[in-house]
Order: sequence, then C-alpha cells, then structure tokens
Amino acid sequence: MRERMRTLIESQAWETVIIAIIVLNAITLGLETAPSVTAHIGGLLTLADRIILAVFVVELLIRIYAYRGAFFKDPWSLFDFTIVGIALLPASGSLSVLRALRILRALRLISVVPSLRRVVGGLVAALPGMGAIVILMALVFYVFAVMATKLYGAAFPEWFGSLALSLYTLFQIMTLESWSMGIVRPVMEVFPNAWLFFVPFILCTAFTVLNLFIGIIVAAMQEEHDQDADAERKKIHIETEIILAEVRQLRAELASYKRDLG
Amino acid sequence: MRERMRTLIESQAWETVIIAIIVLNAITLGLETAPSVTAHIGGLLTLADRIILAVFVVELLIRIYAYRGAFFKDPWSLFDFTIVGIALLPASGSLSVLRALRILRALRLISVVPSLRRVVGGLVAALPGMGAIVILMALVFYVFAVMATKLYGAAFPEWFGSLALSLYTLFQIMTLESWSMGIVRPVMEVFPNAWLFFVPFILCTAFTVLNLFIGIIVAAMQEEHDQDADAERKKIHIETEIILAEVRQLRAELASYKRDLG
Amino acid sequence: MRERMRTLIESQAWETVIIAIIVLNAITLGLETAPSVTAHIGGLLTLADRIILAVFVVELLIRIYAYRGAFFKDPWSLFDFTIVGIALLPASGSLSVLRALRILRALRLISVVPSLRRVVGGLVAALPGMGAIVILMALVFYVFAVMATKLYGAAFPEWFGSLALSLYTLFQIMTLESWSMGIVRPVMEVFPNAWLFFVPFILCTAFTVLNLFIGIIVAAMQEEHDQDADAERKKIHIETEIILAEVRQLRAELASYKRDLG
Amino acid sequence: MRERMRTLIESQAWETVIIAIIVLNAITLGLETAPSVTAHIGGLLTLADRIILAVFVVELLIRIYAYRGAFFKDPWSLFDFTIVGIALLPASGSLSVLRALRILRALRLISVVPSLRRVVGGLVAALPGMGAIVILMALVFYVFAVMATKLYGAAFPEWFGSLALSLYTLFQIMTLESWSMGIVRPVMEVFPNAWLFFVPFILCTAFTVLNLFIGIIVAAMQEEHDQDADAERKKIHIETEIILAEVRQLRAELASYKRDLG
Repeated sequence: MRERMRTLIESQAWETVIIAIIVLNAITLGLETAPSVTAHIGGLLTLADRIILAVFVVELLIRIYAYRGAFFKDPWSLFDFTIVGIALLPASGSLSVLRALRILRALRLISVVPSLRRVVGGLVAALPGMGAIVILMALVFYVFAVMATKLYGAAFPEWFGSLALSLYTLFQIMTLESWSMGIVRPVMEVFPNAWLFFVPFILCTAFTVLNLFIGIIVAAMQEEHDQDADAERKKIHIETEIILAEVRQLRAELASYKRDLG
Repeated sequence: MRERMRTLIESQAWETVIIAIIVLNAITLGLETAPSVTAHIGGLLTLADRIILAVFVVELLIRIYAYRGAFFKDPWSLFDFTIVGIALLPASGSLSVLRALRILRALRLISVVPSLRRVVGGLVAALPGMGAIVILMALVFYVFAVMATKLYGAAFPEWFGSLALSLYTLFQIMTLESWSMGIVRPVMEVFPNAWLFFVPFILCTAFTVLNLFIGIIVAAMQEEHDQDADAERKKIHIETEIILAEVRQLRAELASYKRDLG
Repeated sequence: MRERMRTLIESQAWETVIIAIIVLNAITLGLETAPSVTAHIGGLLTLADRIILAVFVVELLIRIYAYRGAFFKDPWSLFDFTIVGIALLPASGSLSVLRALRILRALRLISVVPSLRRVVGGLVAALPGMGAIVILMALVFYVFAVMATKLYGAAFPEWFGSLALSLYTLFQIMTLESWSMGIVRPVMEVFPNAWLFFVPFILCTAFTVLNLFIGIIVAAMQEEHDQDADAERKKIHIETEIILAEVRQLRAELASYKRDLG
Repeated sequence: MRERMRTLIESQAWETVIIAIIVLNAITLGLETAPSVTAHIGGLLTLADRIILAVFVVELLIRIYAYRGAFFKDPWSLFDFTIVGIALLPASGSLSVLRALRILRALRLISVVPSLRRVVGGLVAALPGMGAIVILMALVFYVFAVMATKLYGAAFPEWFGSLALSLYTLFQIMTLESWSMGIVRPVMEVFPNAWLFFVPFILCTAFTVLNLFIGIIVAAMQEEHDQDADAERKKIHIETEIILAEVRQLRAELASYKRDLG
C-alpha cells in the first residue's frame, strides 16, 4: 500500500497534475485581486481555493504516509508543509494579513518543477560559503547603526531615532537610493562633517557587497572548472595509459625474447 | 534567373548599398523630429521616406523570390519582414503610434552588418540557458505583486491598486529607483511593518538578478575556455603522439632485430 | 611567566571568553541607544561598559607583556590597540563625538574570529594591487572638481562652491544618486552645455570603477586558478613519472641483458 | 646634441622633476578655486602658473626637437601636446571656459607616471574589441530617441522636445536615475501605455551594458589565462621532452647493441 502510494506520487502524471493545480490556484488568487472579477465570480473563486487547498492537504498527507520520517528530513517537503500550513491558520482579526500569504502557495511550483528546484538549490547551496562575509556585513551595519543613532538620532528622529530606524536608513543608503539629496545633505546642514560618517559607510558596504559577489562568481566558476578539469584529466590519463601499455608491451616482448635466447 | 538574383543580393556591393540606404533613412527620420527642418524640407523628407520604403519592399520581394521557403525559416529575414511590414500598415487614427515605429527600420542595420548580427545573435543565444531563472523571476514577481495588491492596494491605489500597477511598482523597486523615499517610507507610515515585505523582495530579486548575471558570465567564459581547452588538448595530443611513435618504432626495431637473430 | 601568559592568551578558552565579552559589550552599547532602556538600567549599562573596558585594557597589557615588540608589528594588534585607545580618550566637550565611537570596539570581533579576520585580510590584501587605479580615480576626481568649482561654483555655491563641496557632489554623481533630476538638469538650465561636463565624468568614473572591479575579480580567479593548476600539474607529473619509471626500468633491463650476453 | 637631449629627457631625474612640476601646478590650480587664497596670493599663483606653462612649452619643444616625426606618432606625446596647447589659446570672451580647462594639465601625470600610463593604456586597448557593442548601443539609443521625440515630444517638451533632449533623458533612464518617479510615472499619466516603451528600453540597455561588461571581463581573463596556459604548456612540454629523451636513448642503446652483436 505504502509502496503503491510512493509509486503514484513519484509518477510523471502526478507531477503534471500538481503543477496544473498550482498554476490554477495562482490564477484564481491573482483574479481575486481584481474587484470587478470578485464582484461576479467571487464565490466561485473562494470555492476553487478551498477545493485546491483540500487537494494540497490530501497530497501532503499521502506524502507523509508514504515517506514517514524521511518526509520531515527533506527540506523541500518542509517547504511545502510550511506553505500549506500557513493557509490552514485562522486568518481573521490581527492575523488577516495571513490571507495575503495564501499566494505563497504558488511558490510550491519551485519544489515541484525540477529545473526551478535546481536553480534555487544552487542559490541556497552558495549561501553557507558566504557565512563569514554575511556576518561581517551584519557587524558593519550594527556598528554604524549604533553610531548613527547616537550621533544623529536626536536631530533626525524620523531616520535615526532608534536602532531599527537607523538600520533601515543605512540599508537604504547602501542601495544608494536618495542617499545624498534625501538623507546626507539634510544631515550635513546640521552636522557639516556627516560625510565623514556616510561616505566611508558607502565605501565599506560597496566593498563588502563586491566581495560577496566575487565570492559567488569564483565559486560558480570553480565548480564549472572542476568538472572541466576532471574531464580533461581523464583524457590526458587515457593518452598516458596508451603510452604506458605500449612501453609495458615492449618490456614484456623484451623479457620473452630474453627467455627465448636464455 | 533565381540564381542570378541570389548572387546579386549576396554580393558585397548590394550589402553596402542597403547599409547606405538604411543609414540615409535613419537620418531622414531623425530630421523629421525637428520642426524647423520639417517646415522647410518636410515634403522632401516624406518623399525620400516613401522611395526608401519602396526600395525595402522590392528588396524583400527579391529575397523572397530568391530563397522562397528558406526565407521564412531564417529569423533575420523574418525580422526584416516584420519591420518593413509595420511601415506598410495604415498609420492613422488610433494606430497613429505606428508612424513612430517607422524608425525601427534603422534596426535593419543589425541584420545587415555582420558584426552587429553576431553580437545580437550571441545575446539571443544566451537567453534559453536562462529559462529557469527567468521563470523563477516571473514567479517571484507574480507572488509579490498579488500580495502587494492585497496588502497595500486599498491604501495606495496609485502604486498597488491593481496587479498591473503592483508589477510596475515592484519593477521600479527592483531597479532601486526611489524605492525607499518614494515608495516604502510613505507605505511604512500606514503599515509600519511594510519593510518586512519590501526588504526581502529587494534581497530576493537582487540575488536572482545576480545569479542571472553569473550564469551569463560563466557561460561566456565556459565557451572561451572550451575553445582554449580544445587547442590545448590538441597540443598535448601531438606531443603524446610523438612519444607513442618513438615507442612503437622501438618495438618494431626490437621485433625486426628478433627476426634477424631468430 | 611570559611563556605561560602567551599559552593562556592563545588558548581556545580565552578566545571564547573574549568573543563573549565583545558581543556582550556590543549589546550593552546597542541598548544604550534606547531611551526607555537607559531610563531603567542606564547605570548598570555604564557600569558594565567600564568593567568591559577595563578587561580590554588588561587583555591588551597582557598581550603587550607577552609579545613585547612583536605586538606593535602585528597589524591586528595595532587595530585592537587603536580601538581600545579611542575609548580611553576623554570624551567631553568638542570630543563628545568620541562617545559614539565606543561601539567600534565591536569591530574587535574581526580581529578575534579567525574566519572574519581571513575575509578582511583578503580584502585588504587586494588593495595594493589596485594602487594605480585608485590614484587614477583620485586624479580624475581632482581634475573634475577643480573644473566644476571654476565653472559652476559661482552659480551653484551649495553644490560646487568650494573644492570640497565639488568633490562631494561629484562622488554623489558617481553613485548616480539624483545626478540628473537633482543636479545636472538644474545646472543645465543655467549652462545648457553642462552635460558635456557631467556625462563624460559619469562615463569616465563608471569605466574606472568597472576596471577596479575587473582587476579584483581577475586577481581572485587567478589565485584560485593557480592553486588548481598546481594540483593539476602535480597529477600530470605523477603520470609522467610512472611512464618515465617504466622506460628507465626497460633501459635497465636491456642493459642487464646486454651484460648477460656480452 | 639631439642625442644628448634624448638622454636627458629619458632620464629618471627629468621624470621626477616633471612629475613634481605637474603636482605643483595641480596644487596651485586647486588653490585658485578658493577666493580666500586668491585674495592673498592670487598674483603669486598666476605667476607660478605662467612659469610652469613656460616650462611645459619648453619641455615639449625639446621633445619635438629630440624625436622629430616620431613625436607626432606617439599617442601620449599628442596627448601632452593637446593639453599644453589648450593652455596657450586666448582664454577670453566666449572662450573663457578654456581657463577652467587648464587643470587638465594635471592629467599629464598619466602620461608621465608609467603605472598610470599602463592602466589607462589597458583601458583604451580594451575599447576596439567593444566596437560592435558600442555601435549597437548607439543604434538602440538613436532609435528609441527618435521614437520618444515623436511620441512624447509634444506633451513633455522639457524631456523629449528634441532629439538631443530625448537622448539625454534616455541616458538618465539608462542610469536608472529617477526613471520612474521622475519621468515615466508623469508620462504614464498622459500615455498610460508608456511603460511599454520604457521598460523594454531599460531591459535592452541593461542587457547591452551587461554584455559590454562581460566582454571586458572575459577579455581580461583570457589574457591572464593565455599567459598561464603558455607557462603550463612549457612545463608539460619539458616533462614530455624528458620521456622522449629517455625513449630515444633507449633506441640508440638498442641500435648500438644490435651493431655490437651484428
């Protein structure tokens, strides 16, 4: 029984059906954003949404039944589990924002379509190698945010009034959005030396982001290159093997010849 | 007859004439944008434009006659066909915008000049390899746009009033243009937690664009590297061949020697 | 005694304690930015800060005692020394800004955690190779700033009133922040040809930054590649060695054979 | 005489003196931008400027005398010639802008300092390889500018009133500066479909710039890689040579042995 379930949910047909349902759900949820559509077929959309949610829940239960413990060890299964779980939470009152999260179900497409899963898997796999740079970045942000709050918090409460506000404003400055005309020039009118704080911050973060970036490029190339090098090595190895075989053949011939004469 | 036509339109002289006509047409269409010029020689420009269009139509007809079915299989021929076709549509009433599209004829330069054709061909050839990332990007945009419409559509109809508006605004945010001072700070005045939506969106899209980018770089290098590796392998192969020849020569000598003695 | 000190401060436990103290200090300094927190436990935070500073001073003294002259030759030790030194300066009157610099102590995490030290070391090591490009950049900035001050200083004193203001404004333009709507369009209303100054500046700096960037990428890849090439060469070398051994063995056999017969 | 002149101007001492004079000139021209300085020592600065200009003219005349025709074939000499020549033009009336160009003399540092000359030479050498992409870029800009002028020139004369204004505005949009909030959203209020024009333009130019960029990176790496590959090939070649020598030695021994017996 369990085996048969597993065969079913690993079949190509099942995958196609699930993809179709996810796309259909994405469309119904997209249509719900248009008031003119909900006015006419709003009930139908809600009904479709409930049916699709039920299908997803049943699919998850089948997978949990089929794989048991292994289900909760596969990160993609947990991804699906979390996304469907969000939809089951009561979405009312202060949690009404959860209703908007239902569209996250469209992201299940990533876990179902192999090529998307590969791309996202590749991105996620690149993250641990960047650990040190991300920590460094967080440290730089924290240090600059504490300083900004102390130095400019009193005069510009809207931008640097608290640690959280400073962090947000520094993130904006890092993306270079309105950093000068919007933030630093007004600050410099009160603190003329403020550029001594912000220009180094921009250079620091630009340099760190650049390194994050280079790290990813080098890692990507490294991987490509290793595969190439392996293939290359194998080819050189084969050529060497041919010479080696010839030389050994020669030694064998010489030995047999020696035996013949001796 | 067909053969002679083909020889003609594949000749260097023909190419030069067509390039000259395209450049001339680009200039006349450029001059048409200046009212001071059209006031004086507007009639002349219109006449030149009609004559050039006639030349283009004749050239296309010759090419269709010369290549027949093959014409419609070559993407660059279809490109030329479409561009000239646009100019033949009646450009009046609600279609008056088509008059502005006549300058697209200058893009025929791409299909005529070999070096430009190679560059654009290279760009287009890189696209299919990015399929998965482009789909991923579209998915991320769709999911975030549906959420943004649900969450902020009522309060900010100008930016998030419909799915289309949300998609446009999110594209603007992805390019980092006025994302904070122009969009997110005003939104945060109503929804203080809006940064939880927009900062992850920026990080997600930045990361995906970065990967698109890296994919293209790695592919470009891969191609260069493969060509190099081929040349390299050939050189190593030749050196190995020399050794192999020597060793085989040695075996032959030994065998002949053995024959002599035996 | 000196030896024992050195063993102590190079131990894993000591490192862990120092990291814990730095993180604790970073948290207390972060908490100080929140008025609601300082109102309740401000005294406690100040006390903790003084104790931690004392610990840092003692730690530095121990290291100076343990390593003597070598301490002042290690850049990371000087980094720690400077950061702790800033905290000991009297932070009152016009130097009250120094109080905000106390959070720089959190940067000691970089010198203590090996992986962070490696990352920053890598960044700093990449700098000297960029010397020429940085000088070129400085030259371009200086030349354009002098010209901008001469040309637009009188009309736009807020942006180009002095050499320093011009340098800042040109830095802003290089980051592309509001360069057109904020700066160049207003300037062009007075000097219609100003784009002849600013567009080349943008292209120049973009091109120089691009080269800085490429230099770093190429250097990073070069390093990776050299390590690979070494490993590769070793493998090819081993294969060659095997063939060589076989051939030499063959020669030895032939010689011994010759001896036997001769 | 000519020979002696050449020895002089190619000497290290001469180079040092010229660098010192250029730096001094850069400083005096920088000081001239400060009214407080010119009020005190303005006459001195003008005098210094004239003397330095005279030195430059004399230096150029010596070089022309020493190298004759070859002088005008060296691009760096022409660079120096043009920069000094600008300073000799009468800078009055409508040409008063030329006074501001005197600071360009500081750029002579590039032609004098070898490391700067190498960096700039590298940048300039990369340009021809990008010819096709630059032409493509120019074509895209021209086509979009003509269309923008036709479509939006009447409604937004400040941004798209003429071909030149459209080109400038499109350049601004390409740099993503205020493209949406500043330009496209206002345009979309009149022409709701304007995003169909601007979003493709942004994607087109971003993609072309990306390719320009990748072309430069790949070329830079290619060069590095070629040098590496040469060194690598030489090492493999040496190893092959050793084997070959051994095998040939073996053949010679066998032949001599055969001769001995025969």
